[in-house]
Amino acid sequence: MNILKIGGNVIDNERELDTFLSTVVKSLAPCILIHGGGKIATEISKKLGIEPQMVDGRRITDKDTLDIAVMVYGGLLNKKIVAKLQALQVNALGFTGADANIISADKRPVKDIDYGYVGDIKSVDASFLRTCLSLNISPILASLSHDNHGNLLNTNADTIAAFVAIEAAKYEEVQLLYCFEKKGVLTDTNNDNSVVHHLDENLYNSMINNGSIHKGMKPKLENAFLAKRAGVHKVFICHAFSALDPRTGTEIV
Amino acid sequence: MNILKIGGNVIDNERELDTFLSTVVKSLAPCILIHGGGKIATEISKKLGIEPQMVDGRRITDKDTLDIAVMVYGGLLNKKIVAKLQALQVNALGFTGADANIISADKRPVKDIDYGYVGDIKSVDASFLRTCLSLNISPILASLSHDNHGNLLNTNADTIAAFVAIEAAKYEEVQLLYCFEKKGVLTDTNNDNSVVHHLDENLYNSMINNGSIHKGMKPKLENAFLAKRAGVHKVFICHAFSALDPRTGTEIV
Repeated sequence: MNILKIGGNVIDNERELDTFLSTVVKSLAPCILIHGGGKIATEISKKLGIEPQMVDGRRITDKDTLDIAVMVYGGLLNKKIVAKLQALQVNALGFTGADANIISADKRPVKDIDYGYVGDIKSVDASFLRTCLSLNISPILASLSHDNHGNLLNTNADTIAAFVAIEAAKYEEVQLLYCFEKKGVLTDTNNDNSVVHHLDENLYNSMINNGSIHKGMKPKLENAFLAKRAGVHKVFICHAFSALDPRTGTEIV
Repeated sequence: MNILKIGGNVIDNERELDTFLSTVVKSLAPCILIHGGGKIATEISKKLGIEPQMVDGRRITDKDTLDIAVMVYGGLLNKKIVAKLQALQVNALGFTGADANIISADKRPVKDIDYGYVGDIKSVDASFLRTCLSLNISPILASLSHDNHGNLLNTNADTIAAFVAIEAAKYEEVQLLYCFEKKGVLTDTNNDNSVVHHLDENLYNSMINNGSIHKGMKPKLENAFLAKRAGVHKVFICHAFSALDPRTGTEIV
């Protein structure tokens, strides 16, 4: 089973999205594709006069911001991807975590910061996702969970990818591909060819300590290691267009 | 199999929506629920500065209006309904017509009026909807179709309900319930108790001729007769809160 996660860089560029869907997803289908939002969510927020809420540099999901996420991630982007895949003869079906009850979460408890409508994953039910794959349907999953009390919640797409992969790996061999705009984890962020092809926790920790892991990469890598430790067979961080040959990127070992 | 269609009057009122979901849908689940938009689509359009496009009194779906429909019908409303049903222990899964390729449509040809991104249904594949029902999952269907070339299209929810019912009726007995804010078809629009309990085409035509069918009811009734003629076992027009006892409303015979 292949589980792919794409980020804003692919989503924001219609031509890149088309290329990714027609090459990578079409080749790997049926597969699970997980996506977050992109610039369009920010643009629509601006047009609606909703200012991003930040506390101590952290983004807060207030009610309006959640609605935007549901509209844009769960609606506009998710359905655009589904419609594009159908045109490629890839049978796709869009989900949020509420659909078929696949991702239950708890609203993050308020400690120092009230993050608002953010969900920490409580449980994943991948059985229906597996049913879809067995019927040759590719689930396209927007990064939203729900609290089983009627509320949708914003949840990080990298985290969702890890949790879905961990749950699915209880039943079959899973390859988890974090697709982004770089070739992989780099030892030198200024040199695109300085890819670390095999990253274990020792090397990761030493790279953290010597400052060669970019701050923005940490959550993605923490999720990648979480998945690997929990039994996901193969975990790669790679360029979106190299996902068919992920060994050009970084394998988490 | 029960197929329910609800309109804006239920969707726009959160308390009415909650009541409808917790009584009607929970009792009939697994069932298929079809919904359009409501006032919120108009409100968000206004906030985004998108003016409704009208030609000869007909609403036109331009690109911006389509995006709003995808965001609001396919995103915000659809996922809100799904999350609310999950809280009621009704396993629900949201769809547009692009998801699992259930509703293919052609963009309406331009004759006197260019309606824009409006889809006339070409084919319905209800097999996956039936799979969902067999797994105790209730499909929640937003009134959007797709053209198999990567584009979503706006399609009337009453029409979608009729076409899905007709396709499903090839395999099993189907009851189609058009739920709205009146008790049924009325002989006197000023008297809520003047319900026609059995409406056949002769009576319908004579009511059209004597002006007792409200103009806005015509498309709904045309779809209801279309479904009935095409083999849907039971077709009712009834109040949303009477859908468990639709004989209080109008049966299409």
